[in-house]
Amino acid sequence: MTFTSFIPPERTLMGPGPSDVSARVLSALARPTIGHLDPKFVGMMDEVKALLQYAFQTENEMTLALSAPGSAGMEACFVNLVQPQDTVVVCQNGVFGGRMAENVKRIGANLVLLESEWGRAVDAQALDNLLEQTPQAKFVAFVHAETSTGARSDAKTLCEIARKHQCLTIVDAVTSLGGSELRVDEWGIDAIYSGSQKCLSCVPGISPVSFSDRAVDIIKHRETPVPSWFLDQSLVMSYWSGEGKRAYHHTAPVNSLYALHESLVILHDEGLENSWQRHQDMHQLLATGLEKLGVDFVVPQAERLAQLNTVLIPQGIDDAKVRAILLNDYNLEIGAGLGQFAGKAWRIGLMGHSANRANVALCLSALKEVLV
Amino acid sequence: MTFTSFIPPERTLMGPGPSDVSARVLSALARPTIGHLDPKFVGMMDEVKALLQYAFQTENEMTLALSAPGSAGMEACFVNLVQPQDTVVVCQNGVFGGRMAENVKRIGANLVLLESEWGRAVDAQALDNLLEQTPQAKFVAFVHAETSTGARSDAKTLCEIARKHQCLTIVDAVTSLGGSELRVDEWGIDAIYSGSQKCLSCVPGISPVSFSDRAVDIIKHRETPVPSWFLDQSLVMSYWSGEGKRAYHHTAPVNSLYALHESLVILHDEGLENSWQRHQDMHQLLATGLEKLGVDFVVPQAERLAQLNTVLIPQGIDDAKVRAILLNDYNLEIGAGLGQFAGKAWRIGLMGHSANRANVALCLSALKEVLV
Repeated sequence: MTFTSFIPPERTLMGPGPSDVSARVLSALARPTIGHLDPKFVGMMDEVKALLQYAFQTENEMTLALSAPGSAGMEACFVNLVQPQDTVVVCQNGVFGGRMAENVKRIGANLVLLESEWGRAVDAQALDNLLEQTPQAKFVAFVHAETSTGARSDAKTLCEIARKHQCLTIVDAVTSLGGSELRVDEWGIDAIYSGSQKCLSCVPGISPVSFSDRAVDIIKHRETPVPSWFLDQSLVMSYWSGEGKRAYHHTAPVNSLYALHESLVILHDEGLENSWQRHQDMHQLLATGLEKLGVDFVVPQAERLAQLNTVLIPQGIDDAKVRAILLNDYNLEIGAGLGQFAGKAWRIGLMGHSANRANVALCLSALKEVLV
Repeated sequence: MTFTSFIPPERTLMGPGPSDVSARVLSALARPTIGHLDPKFVGMMDEVKALLQYAFQTENEMTLALSAPGSAGMEACFVNLVQPQDTVVVCQNGVFGGRMAENVKRIGANLVLLESEWGRAVDAQALDNLLEQTPQAKFVAFVHAETSTGARSDAKTLCEIARKHQCLTIVDAVTSLGGSELRVDEWGIDAIYSGSQKCLSCVPGISPVSFSDRAVDIIKHRETPVPSWFLDQSLVMSYWSGEGKRAYHHTAPVNSLYALHESLVILHDEGLENSWQRHQDMHQLLATGLEKLGVDFVVPQAERLAQLNTVLIPQGIDDAKVRAILLNDYNLEIGAGLGQFAGKAWRIGLMGHSANRANVALCLSALKEVLV
């Protein structure tokens, strides 16, 4: 067998992530590798931490970038905080809420599932009622931006309700960080995880996480060790923490962290609120155009994510064929439906660097040509 | 606060990893990101799998690159195979054997520790004796190339002994893959993990793993789910497996896999045996030079790793100061001692792209100047 270098095609990425990675971030990624304990690298990690605190709007000391994708970020939140004797209310309104439930089950903790309709926000009133009847609940977990459906839940209100019932919150912000209003400290979120490859427009493979002091307190006072050594945040923090010598835990993904740093500098330069607004503006442009094409949204307007537009595949249209034409003839990737929406919906991403007028124009024109 | 792009210094990496990443691999890394389900990307993954089978010298179907560092590869092997009722013999002769033991403890399985002297190979006769007295043992775990000490254990013999006692083997090949003779099928290794950033000279953050059919059989017939959802190899394989549609599990680290692909193509072009020999040749050059400088090795000659040379810090020499001078004045990174050897030894890596005459010459000259 012979093997040669892999030269990928140049795509426009308007699926559910990864989003387009800018030349600037790709350049950062390709800078020379240095050691994970090199003082210059450790200095850069401090900046990554400060920039993540900005992106999350938090002063949480335990804020860092995990050396693995968002799924590992989710698992890190659950395995560090939840112990087998705990009861966790998981709000499910899509695929990723289901994955949260799976995490709770594998820990052997008590799972109470609150199911909301797919394509809708989590039902806040139903959560309040459920917690009223579930005094043993210790955690409430929900997905801020459901990547499988395009629905945005009211994280602020859900956290208020959880707090009212003395519950800590675990929040999935994989698709929301950088693209939707998100205020970790103000809203009182206790554990949150995201991904590098959505609205931050960094390469995939890194998961920003943050834990409140209340959450850190639980981690410090666990009765049993965290089941995962790799995801044990007490150990990970000894590598990421500010003062003095860093304790080796594992070899950090040096180059991916260069890229994350660059993408966060770009976000900081633009300004977080400006980035949220840009996502909203591009969404509005796309929605207006889709309406003209007669394409309908899955999610009611008030609950839609700007950065992930889930639309019903028009009747008589061949899902896979259209996506293949877009990919092969236009080099344009849009996302297939997932879970309940497989074969029924498309997911059009406007995330980070992908949320720009040129992409919206390309997508609308290509769809118009293909859907004729 | 202001933030600007991070421009790393250009180092020569002769520590315990990451090793020097070639311009060719960095170029591959920076190619445009495409989707993790893009047919072009899936085709590349098939090549990564075939190239890893070559590097591991195996036909194992469950051979793939985990989306996280070697520590996660270690954890994947343990959490997928070992269940709480199992007894695992862990051979410890350095830091990483200790980490294996920690994995067994966190699973809640029965740990039997076989300690060998640090800086020496695992004692094969002692393992045979121990297994004779431990008929309930189901797994034997050991580190092929101990990155903390520079000792190479006789993996072939250890696997023979394990098989004689009906045990499966879990092997750490983080530092050996690509740099030392390693034959997974011929030696009968059941589960093996490595890292991208050592003798493959790829960027850090990816862990090649491989499981034998015997190991896969255990995974398939587990009584309880794998405690980690992210590392559940049954799920991961549904994304990596050859036939038909790939099932989404998590978003793969697309660009890091471009880089891994390129580094494996380079290894394949050179030839595995040639790479092993090059590491040995460069080690010989370095050892001859170090001898002239009066610097002694920690590990007896027959048990030394070519790619990781652990040497005693000469008397009267300030460890941290010398390493700082090498780093700041020569842009040369060598490794500090770890565990029992902290402050007592240096670790000089000759891994992958770093194993060349220029690096050996630089290291010897710089040490000569600094140690005067």
